[in-house]
This record gives sequence, structure tokens and C-alpha cells, in this order.
Amino acid sequence: MKLIGIVGGMGPEATCDLYLKIIRNTPANNDQDHIRTIIDSNPKIPDRTAFIVGQGPDPRPLLVETAKNVEKAGACFLVLPCNTAHYFHKDVQEAVGIPVLHMMEEVARYLKGKVDQVGILATSGTLRTGLYEKALSAVGIKSIVPGEDDQEKVMESIYLVKAGNLERGREIILEQGRQLAARGAQAVIAGCTEIPLILKQGDLDVHVVDATEILAKACVRFACES
Amino acid sequence: MKLIGIVGGMGPEATCDLYLKIIRNTPANNDQDHIRTIIDSNPKIPDRTAFIVGQGPDPRPLLVETAKNVEKAGACFLVLPCNTAHYFHKDVQEAVGIPVLHMMEEVARYLKGKVDQVGILATSGTLRTGLYEKALSAVGIKSIVPGEDDQEKVMESIYLVKAGNLERGREIILEQGRQLAARGAQAVIAGCTEIPLILKQGDLDVHVVDATEILAKACVRFACES
Repeated sequence: MKLIGIVGGMGPEATCDLYLKIIRNTPANNDQDHIRTIIDSNPKIPDRTAFIVGQGPDPRPLLVETAKNVEKAGACFLVLPCNTAHYFHKDVQEAVGIPVLHMMEEVARYLKGKVDQVGILATSGTLRTGLYEKALSAVGIKSIVPGEDDQEKVMESIYLVKAGNLERGREIILEQGRQLAARGAQAVIAGCTEIPLILKQGDLDVHVVDATEILAKACVRFACES
Repeated sequence: MKLIGIVGGMGPEATCDLYLKIIRNTPANNDQDHIRTIIDSNPKIPDRTAFIVGQGPDPRPLLVETAKNVEKAGACFLVLPCNTAHYFHKDVQEAVGIPVLHMMEEVARYLKGKVDQVGILATSGTLRTGLYEKALSAVGIKSIVPGEDDQEKVMESIYLVKAGNLERGREIILEQGRQLAARGAQAVIAGCTEIPLILKQGDLDVHVVDATEILAKACVRFACES
């Protein structure tokens, strides 16, 4: 089995969520059946969205340094449990000698042929860079995103989770998910790693697509492939 | 802040539990307030109890290798989220150049002056090596442990959790916890990292001492000390 490498800390709780989902998706009867996993949870990596919207320092130097550290510690491939950080996927991939899985491509592969249009709950950074829209349109799926005012509420919800206030964050995100469904989304992507912490399957009338869960399953599949 | 190093995988879900408890015990308003944490979750480390009772391979070579790997990746101190692995604490401490926190000593420090006698729910490996008894008696606390047949049930419960069957594991451990309380334990130590996953505060009439939570708090304290 290949060693999994997690370039984490964006945020820390989302890193924990990914790792738990990897464990739960691994067929195992004892400790030893599980996959060795190296995690560098580095929350000091500057905020990705703040940089993308021109209001914060560049996260790339520390992101790349952290990725290299995980590679050096023995990982056979890397994952980034932060949707927005995928804007820098190419920078990370070019800096290391091992594959870096791509969250949006995994989500698009999962949704292909299942739906015609999906709603996206993600950071303003992820939306502005078109990360999901591009991957989804490549498999013939149309994207629906919140309007400007609603997107501000989504961001408020995400930062509430990062500050540990999950309850208030959940109220906001539920309302935003319902609105996307009302506008015709046949599924809603929880497309920021903080969102699956507060929006679960069954919370909306439509399918909630947990991008972290899909990435976890991709990790297990990739680690077990020969 | 000092980088935390977790020598994990014993079991993987317990590692995740410790990391989540570190996050929840860190005062933080955003990602960047959190403490950088390096985790090598290596579930291939052989079963600690099996070795101690003479029925399995020596976990020390892989345990020490994993600890060195976490040190090399930049950790400033180490923790072992496995109670039983503390039987090899000295081996790990001698192999690295950074401090290795000691779970039983942290638990004993926490309980000192609070109770006269506590019950211990732990692996047969942890009990046979007297890890808790020694640390507790050093601070004047008497230990109560399950009888031989009951201890077999505790082990059954722990291996059920490691195999992902938390519900059945929980039924067994609740009964064992109740018995220790009935025998005069003023508190019960959840002294195997799998046990806090199924035995929570409020489940027994007496205080449940979550050794993982105590270790998490020690990590945050130690990381923030100058």
C-alpha cells in the first residue's frame, strides 16, 4: 500500500475530517490493515481566499514547503484537504516528485452522468478562480453559485467554523444550500473542507456532495492500486 | 509555538481523536492561531499488547523508526496516542533528541489530590506492565482493575473498536465501567486510546477520565510554553 501524504492545516479540523474519512473508507479488521499516513498540518499557511481576492499574503511559499516536507517524510502521493488551495495545485505538483490528487477532478468524475446542474457552496476564492466550474463543465455539468450577497454569507459561515462556532455556521449554510436547490440544483457540492463539518447528507432535499469524502475515497483507491 | 509531533496509528482513529482534541483545546479565532502538528500515523506498528503478553512481534523497531521520522519532519516534542505503547516510552525517548510527553504521568498529575482510588479501563498490556498503577501510586492514588474474566471483555471491546464496531464495543465497556464504580472507584480512567471513542463523560455515575483529552491539553500547554 502506498503511503498517503496530507498537506494539511487548511483548516486543521478539515484535515482531521479528511483523515477520519480515509480511516472509515479503508476496509480493515485491525490497526495493521490501515494505510500509513503522513500529515503535516500547517495552519500557518496564509489564508488562500484572502490572497486570491488581493487582501492577504501569498500562501504558496509555505504551502510548497509543507508539501515538500510531507514528501520527504515518505509519502507516495499528496492530497490537499482545502478546496481553495487547488488554485495552487500546479505550483505544488511542480515542486514535488510524487502525484498530487486533484479534488475538483475527483468530484467531477463522481458526478459525471448523474446530474445536469449542481450548486456549489465554496469560498469566494474557489468560485472566483472557477475551479469547480471548469472541472464540471468538462464533464457536461452546469454550475449554480450563490449571488454576491449570499456568497458573503457563505464566507461568514466558513470563518465561523474555522473559529470553532459550528452551530451558527450551520444555520447560515443550510439556508444557502436550500436556495441553490430551489434554483434548480440537482445536488449541492460541499466544496470547502469546512462545509462538510456542518452540512451533512439528508440536511437538504437534494444530494449533498461531500468533496472531502470523495477525496478520502480517492486516497484509499490510489493507495491500494498497484 | 513549538511544533507538535504525533507518533500515531495505534490505532488510527485514536490518533484522529487526539488531534481533534488538540484543535478543540487550542484558543483560536482562525486557522493561523492553531499549532503546526506533524503526524506519522503508522498502523503497521505491531500490536503492543500482543507483544507484552508474548503472542506477537516486537513493536519497538517500527515504533522508534516512526518517532524518528516525526522528529526529522520538524517536531519539537513527541506524544504517543497509545497508552500501551508507553511501556516503550524509554526506548522512544532514548532514540530521539526531543522530549516525549508521558501520558500516565499527565493523568496522575491531573488526578492528584482529587480522588483516593480510581478504576482503570485499559489493555491487558497496560495493566500487566503496571503503567497506571505506578504513576498513580506515586501520587497516593489506589488503582482498581477488572478481574481476569472482565479484563478479557475489556480487550474484546477494544478490538471491536479497532475493527470499526463501536456500538457493540460501547455496550461492553459501559458494563465494565459500572462494575469498577460499584467496587468503589471514585473515577474511571479511559486508559486505552480506543476507549474515549466509546465511553464519554456522563456515561457513568462517576467521572470518566479521558486520558487522550489530558494528553491533548498537555500538548497545547507544552507547545505554548516558552
